[in-house]
Amino acid sequence: MNTIGLVAFALVGSSKAIREEFDLFGIAIVGLAMAFAGGVTRDLFVTRVPLVLQTPTEIVLALGGVLLAIVLRIGLRSPDEHPFTLVADAIGLAAFATTGAIVATEANVSAFGIVAIATINAVGGGALADILLDRSPFILFDDFYASCAVLGGLSFLVADALGAGASTAAATCAVVTVGTRLVAVTQNWEIPTVQGLGLTER
Amino acid sequence: MNTIGLVAFALVGSSKAIREEFDLFGIAIVGLAMAFAGGVTRDLFVTRVPLVLQTPTEIVLALGGVLLAIVLRIGLRSPDEHPFTLVADAIGLAAFATTGAIVATEANVSAFGIVAIATINAVGGGALADILLDRSPFILFDDFYASCAVLGGLSFLVADALGAGASTAAATCAVVTVGTRLVAVTQNWEIPTVQGLGLTER
Amino acid sequence: MNTIGLVAFALVGSSKAIREEFDLFGIAIVGLAMAFAGGVTRDLFVTRVPLVLQTPTEIVLALGGVLLAIVLRIGLRSPDEHPFTLVADAIGLAAFATTGAIVATEANVSAFGIVAIATINAVGGGALADILLDRSPFILFDDFYASCAVLGGLSFLVADALGAGASTAAATCAVVTVGTRLVAVTQNWEIPTVQGLGLTER
Repeated sequence: MNTIGLVAFALVGSSKAIREEFDLFGIAIVGLAMAFAGGVTRDLFVTRVPLVLQTPTEIVLALGGVLLAIVLRIGLRSPDEHPFTLVADAIGLAAFATTGAIVATEANVSAFGIVAIATINAVGGGALADILLDRSPFILFDDFYASCAVLGGLSFLVADALGAGASTAAATCAVVTVGTRLVAVTQNWEIPTVQGLGLTER
Repeated sequence: MNTIGLVAFALVGSSKAIREEFDLFGIAIVGLAMAFAGGVTRDLFVTRVPLVLQTPTEIVLALGGVLLAIVLRIGLRSPDEHPFTLVADAIGLAAFATTGAIVATEANVSAFGIVAIATINAVGGGALADILLDRSPFILFDDFYASCAVLGGLSFLVADALGAGASTAAATCAVVTVGTRLVAVTQNWEIPTVQGLGLTER
Repeated sequence: MNTIGLVAFALVGSSKAIREEFDLFGIAIVGLAMAFAGGVTRDLFVTRVPLVLQTPTEIVLALGGVLLAIVLRIGLRSPDEHPFTLVADAIGLAAFATTGAIVATEANVSAFGIVAIATINAVGGGALADILLDRSPFILFDDFYASCAVLGGLSFLVADALGAGASTAAATCAVVTVGTRLVAVTQNWEIPTVQGLGLTER
């Protein structure tokens, strides 16, 4: 799953940079930033050297995603909106939320810490990519995205509290994250704004 | 004081997100980012796991600030400009600058390190909130804000060098930060630009 | 070399902030951010307290760069485009890439980790300065800039793999970085976009 996440997130980040007509170097940087930033932040929070700087496999997978974005762009107009990309992105979101929850549990943080690290691991890359592209992070106002990682993290806590083993809790987190994400995309779920709740005099 | 800081900063961050018509999830994220980012950066700089991920109280306080922002917005048009918010924000600034100075002292950094960590602890949250809202951090050009934390940090150093105890130095830092901030807001203090100094041929 | 880097980067960052008519405090912050952010990120990645917070010399050098930017602005219209600044900036880029490669080697990271830390050390400051100025980091789409640090990091790896000593590898990295950067500026080198390669139906 982590493999698919790295490839998918690099693909999505690079596709966005291609659309903005960044040069090849910029395309690679945005792709790598999207693939790695969440995991790097997770590792810094538990004070260890980022995993991506220690193993040779992660960089190869992410560069594969960058290359895939370039190849897809030659054939398609908008690879980042293709259903294939949306599904891969949802799987990536789930993979990274689950990895974050596992690493956080090992680091003995609080229940909030587990949900926070799962969410940051999942959405940190997308947020950095958007900041590099000089726009407000889409995770903040576009749709039901980071919320899926939060729900995944919470389901991990519940499964763990109910005495499920570590791998059951991880599987629950992954299923809840990818499931809510795919349903949200298909159903166009939206979270209301305060103004939208109709409670304020505008 | 730290309690007031967490609530106030979450309140101010969430109020800004409400004004930008972010959804409820985005409102919570900007509020939590404003409340926690300074302290998290401080903890990373002294290489320890962020405190907010280890204790359950900080998240409860910050979520209280988020809720307060929503409640206030229902009654008021601009809760982030209300005098109550400005005073709470000034107290938060002082509380976080003081906490930063204390943690930095314990980590054996240089005198510059103490002032830098005090300032980052105090203003890091506001800067991140503004970046998430896709605008240039207000601390850089709006008014006499981060400067108050710098003055607080410097007063901490002076008090410490004069042989005052740790708690006297902390109190000095807090009083100087909140005092200069409140005077700056009331008096509309401004720091000149290079162009404003009239020394350049424009 | 590190000395020149700190002064040059603080100078360039402050010059940009002066052009945007930031106040004196904002000018200092952007200058210090540009001088320090790369090194701080490097230190966080290898989980040690940032060097700049421990030694008193780095802050003095960076403040010198800030002051120099103000003095130059009084005499020149665009100090950040002056050849003197461009050369100093190229030397800074090389100095920081080399320092990053050395620190990364000592931290036992992978080959990718060495290139990544060298590049981040070199360009992290410029990227943060641009984010603070609320624009997309110029390193991503403007010209042949971060690529020089990547080439420097790769040449460090090659020299090291060929059995050259640590100081030869460091010298190679510095020469390659500053050399490619100066040639790129003089020759107006550009990296193509995917669209520019003419492979896509636009």
